[in-house]
Amino acid sequence: MSPSDTAGDKDKSSPPNSVQLPDGPNHLKKYRTLEVISNVIKTVGTAPSGAHTEPWTFVVVKDPNMKHKIWEIIEEEEEINYMKRMGQRWVSDLKKLRTTWIKEYLDTAPVPILIFKQVHDFATNGKKKAHYYNEISISISCGILLAALQNAGLVTVTTTPLNCGPRLRMLLARPHNEKLLMLLPAGYPSKEVTIPNLKRKPLDQIMVIL
Amino acid sequence: MSPSDTAGDKDKSSPPNSVQLPDGPNHLKKYRTLEVISNVIKTVGTAPSGAHTEPWTFVVVKDPNMKHKIWEIIEEEEEINYMKRMGQRWVSDLKKLRTTWIKEYLDTAPVPILIFKQVHDFATNGKKKAHYYNEISISISCGILLAALQNAGLVTVTTTPLNCGPRLRMLLARPHNEKLLMLLPAGYPSKEVTIPNLKRKPLDQIMVIL
Repeated sequence: MSPSDTAGDKDKSSPPNSVQLPDGPNHLKKYRTLEVISNVIKTVGTAPSGAHTEPWTFVVVKDPNMKHKIWEIIEEEEEINYMKRMGQRWVSDLKKLRTTWIKEYLDTAPVPILIFKQVHDFATNGKKKAHYYNEISISISCGILLAALQNAGLVTVTTTPLNCGPRLRMLLARPHNEKLLMLLPAGYPSKEVTIPNLKRKPLDQIMVIL
Repeated sequence: MSPSDTAGDKDKSSPPNSVQLPDGPNHLKKYRTLEVISNVIKTVGTAPSGAHTEPWTFVVVKDPNMKHKIWEIIEEEEEINYMKRMGQRWVSDLKKLRTTWIKEYLDTAPVPILIFKQVHDFATNGKKKAHYYNEISISISCGILLAALQNAGLVTVTTTPLNCGPRLRMLLARPHNEKLLMLLPAGYPSKEVTIPNLKRKPLDQIMVIL
């Protein structure tokens, strides 16, 4: 299927980029942020998936205590990742991006979105129902999520909390058939934001025309 | 990194949706299609990737003979997939989507895009260079590709040519470190197009707010 097949969908709510954001008080902006993110996730739900199995759950965290607990778990595990598990080469390959296990943005970003892939589902008879190509499918949905967030004026950063999956799954009370794939801390850019000036491969290195 | 970090990029060509398509003769439309797809791939090249390794090659096929050969390989392998390799359950799970090994659209779609993931790269000393999270990274880029194609008025369908990778890699002369992930036949919709009216899970089944 193609993303365009939503044209047949009767349920036509506003696309995410049609929501106008007021420059109002913070609580109002926070309310609108959740409204925008709900529309974004609805858009993401139109992503294609293997045999149309839709193998995804998006956990949007607004509770400050929960956000703080997520941050604590990730920094604990990431310190062990950087110090022991990832190996010198990986840590060295990340140096130019200046990432470390310190991730204070997890505590300050308005809305972390945790993306869980459903490695299988259950049929009505209780048997496992296969989710074909579930990792590719949910990663495609993440690409559409990134595009939709940006389209709505939100910003984020892709993070893959290595070895944090089981603890975060327990904390967020997600079932055993779900595995954490990615965490996107989403919000509006701060006025002081700076962004890394990453160079990309030129077009003729990534595209071949035959 | 976030997709928004391209703001630092000096190379500002037109975004894909700024290209106006003429209702001219077919050869002109074909020329513009390639121009639009080049801009789309340029956009996709801003996708995030593990340690910013950009593990992707997009092969855009315009040569009719090459398209025909790709079609032949895929139908040959897909017939074996459906008859033997996939198993009854998978074939039965696909029945509602009415897909078979007959894929004439591969021969008629103006521009097939074959997406190869680079499972690793080579450092200047000839040693393997790790491409962290390469499958997740390239699948994210496919999600952005789908969004960008749609944004540019093009349509496609996601196909994963099972067991066709090695033959297609040889045909397209791609190196050993690249594996076929997906094929997107891209083009403008025909006037007679119909699209499947797929139902999606409702928002409260894919999004959890905590």
